[in-house]
Amino acid sequence: MKQLYHVLGAKQLVRDELEELFESARAMEEVVAAGGDRRYEGRIMTTLFFEASTRTRLSFESAMHRLGGSVIGTENAGQFSSAIKGETLEDSIRILSGYSDVIVMRHTEIGAAKRAAKVAGVPVINAGDGAGEHPTQALLDAYTIKKEFGRIDGLKIAMVGDLTYGRTVHSLSYILANYQDVMIYYIAPENVQIPVNVKRYLDEKGIEYMETDDLDAVAGSVDVLYQTRIQKERFPSVEEYEKASGRYIVDAELMSRMGRESIVLHPLPRAGEITEEVDADPRAAYFRQAVNGLYIRMALIDKCLGGSR
Amino acid sequence: MKQLYHVLGAKQLVRDELEELFESARAMEEVVAAGGDRRYEGRIMTTLFFEASTRTRLSFESAMHRLGGSVIGTENAGQFSSAIKGETLEDSIRILSGYSDVIVMRHTEIGAAKRAAKVAGVPVINAGDGAGEHPTQALLDAYTIKKEFGRIDGLKIAMVGDLTYGRTVHSLSYILANYQDVMIYYIAPENVQIPVNVKRYLDEKGIEYMETDDLDAVAGSVDVLYQTRIQKERFPSVEEYEKASGRYIVDAELMSRMGRESIVLHPLPRAGEITEEVDADPRAAYFRQAVNGLYIRMALIDKCLGGSR
Amino acid sequence: MKQLYHVLGAKQLVRDELEELFESARAMEEVVAAGGDRRYEGRIMTTLFFEASTRTRLSFESAMHRLGGSVIGTENAGQFSSAIKGETLEDSIRILSGYSDVIVMRHTEIGAAKRAAKVAGVPVINAGDGAGEHPTQALLDAYTIKKEFGRIDGLKIAMVGDLTYGRTVHSLSYILANYQDVMIYYIAPENVQIPVNVKRYLDEKGIEYMETDDLDAVAGSVDVLYQTRIQKERFPSVEEYEKASGRYIVDAELMSRMGRESIVLHPLPRAGEITEEVDADPRAAYFRQAVNGLYIRMALIDKCLGGSR
Repeated sequence: MKQLYHVLGAKQLVRDELEELFESARAMEEVVAAGGDRRYEGRIMTTLFFEASTRTRLSFESAMHRLGGSVIGTENAGQFSSAIKGETLEDSIRILSGYSDVIVMRHTEIGAAKRAAKVAGVPVINAGDGAGEHPTQALLDAYTIKKEFGRIDGLKIAMVGDLTYGRTVHSLSYILANYQDVMIYYIAPENVQIPVNVKRYLDEKGIEYMETDDLDAVAGSVDVLYQTRIQKERFPSVEEYEKASGRYIVDAELMSRMGRESIVLHPLPRAGEITEEVDADPRAAYFRQAVNGLYIRMALIDKCLGGSR
Repeated sequence: MKQLYHVLGAKQLVRDELEELFESARAMEEVVAAGGDRRYEGRIMTTLFFEASTRTRLSFESAMHRLGGSVIGTENAGQFSSAIKGETLEDSIRILSGYSDVIVMRHTEIGAAKRAAKVAGVPVINAGDGAGEHPTQALLDAYTIKKEFGRIDGLKIAMVGDLTYGRTVHSLSYILANYQDVMIYYIAPENVQIPVNVKRYLDEKGIEYMETDDLDAVAGSVDVLYQTRIQKERFPSVEEYEKASGRYIVDAELMSRMGRESIVLHPLPRAGEITEEVDADPRAAYFRQAVNGLYIRMALIDKCLGGSR
Repeated sequence: MKQLYHVLGAKQLVRDELEELFESARAMEEVVAAGGDRRYEGRIMTTLFFEASTRTRLSFESAMHRLGGSVIGTENAGQFSSAIKGETLEDSIRILSGYSDVIVMRHTEIGAAKRAAKVAGVPVINAGDGAGEHPTQALLDAYTIKKEFGRIDGLKIAMVGDLTYGRTVHSLSYILANYQDVMIYYIAPENVQIPVNVKRYLDEKGIEYMETDDLDAVAGSVDVLYQTRIQKERFPSVEEYEKASGRYIVDAELMSRMGRESIVLHPLPRAGEITEEVDADPRAAYFRQAVNGLYIRMALIDKCLGGSR
């Protein structure tokens, strides 16, 4: 039996694999521009979402269709599926393995994707597991940086907002750890700063970083400002949430202090943490970033399906 | 950049365009009879429904599949999507423009489709925006009249029921305003009669109409009786709703007073306002009308996708 | 007009038809192994689920895609569709007949599938109607037995659990009634034993059966142990439910008393009525059974669509 290729976490990819993936994503841009192709006609993707995430789900489904494949799935398995009747995740995955060729999974619990991969008969792609990881988001973030600057080495990257519960900044940090001379600024109120396990990982890899709660002091010297949403549902209490929210707003004033070649990223959706006046600024790269999600996911699907043939 | 073709409201189409669309819908009947074709293989439609409307959504999805295309979407974005996390409609549309080739949208607010079209990178089709418009329903209604009578000019058309909150009668009125010697009867209790802005539009176009609350007096002299459902959720209070509902029932008795060549239409679903005994009457055209929705939507998708190539 | 082929209940199939269906399912295994085919490209299936059943729905959708077809549908029509606006099932079916080539339907009421078939313009497949029937589950159960033993004649088959409200055991009993020298053991607490109408049917067909509440006494002598879930929602009261639940657990200890050539089946999802330690036992056939659902459903779709061409 052939080894399956799963996409479970950002740490699994080393630099060569990242570069190969970015190459593949670049090629997918041409595939889309040409109207898609039919390479996976007859192949089926399952989108198994235990919590709703319309954007991520539609991005994966679009990616599969652009490659000629079909999609089955559920928008909100947590509410609707037999999960509510007490079935284990493992049983669900075993059975869906018989119905499809790749499973894209969103779950509410850390480690759910790994548990799924252990019993799956087809590749599993982690589309977010609770406060754990969201590797495909981090990969598209890194791909965007690569496209915008032509390199990742040597860049100064600030991550702003909820760095404790925001899983995309964890996954992105792991990916950046593969590059040279990267400097990361973690900008957050103390109560939602970057977790110690992320810092330990960066220490092991010899990546420089600093923690601060002062966005204004840093904004002028970074290449990438990665803004994130403060998600109420990730906080243990309303008090903790209120301390963190609304503190860091990217607006025209802040943009005026950023470098001319810098960019602003955001995993989206945004609430009010980037004002709409910024959208017209060429340094506002977050909508370009969103489209890159399609190409990265096409590349990942291709890797999973090509690898299991 | 090429101009995108959006379907936003019934007023946007003039007579020539309507006739062209009806020609296209007629051709689509043959396409379906032949088992569909593959002209939009590889193209993707997004169905973005902020409120559930299973019939309308499935009609659009069937139309896209009959033309060989794929569909991604969400059944109930209002409940599930990142909308609940505070994202603006504009941001959602910007991103979905990167995932698909046409967006079919149902929203709860008047004007939502126009707002979407303003930022969309692909054509937008309005599948109903609150108490605003529902142009594709009105187009299939008009197409049905054209098919049943061979013409629209010179016909007497009664619209019955909730004419204030029922958006399909507004859109249909705008379309009928393109034709000659049409006479419209608005039959409703005073509290839900046709709004003044619709009447003003008809006045400008020189279309004759009359308002009455007496269905029996009019039934015998009309060619088309367009019955509608009284939707509780469109009324500001239970009292207003109760005054309007259940007042106009199309049953065998009423049919006996209608002309031999007349027809009964209904946008469906019906509650009790047309009794089942009427179904077998050849003048009951509402199920034929429902199938026409498929052909009209195929024609509209074709216009949107053909126009943006 | 050609006669439509509907799949409504397990009683509709006689032995020859069952064998033909099993042959077709066997052929579908090869189709899937070869990556599917495109025989129903352009054809559309509607999955109309008034209650959620993710597994069953995805199994049908996968089956349709493996044959090249498209799918439209709704996950939870009971909650979302115009049903809540008072539309009859009959009206829904009439209209969906215009949008698709076959309708797979799950409903909460006994007899709903038959009502649907009466007005449908396309084949209807019953994917479960309340406490009524679930014929496609029973067909895949029977197909699994046939595959595992090479025959059904002469086998001893125990059905365990909730035999009153568990519709799959009713449908399976009707199918087994087509075979020779079958012996059925109904193992359940008295309050949820097999209903009298099922027993009457077996009596008419001359099928032997016995009722008992003692699983241990029977386990060693059966070829097939068909375990089922006790579904809380099917019971009229919590007291009745608690009397029935948790009484019959298939675990390693029970397996040790079963025959070496016997198998354990389960329609899945399971809650705790088969312990995970049993999964590795080669006699645990329930995951093989689940995959068979795909092949049987492909065969049924093929029969419906081939028959209506």
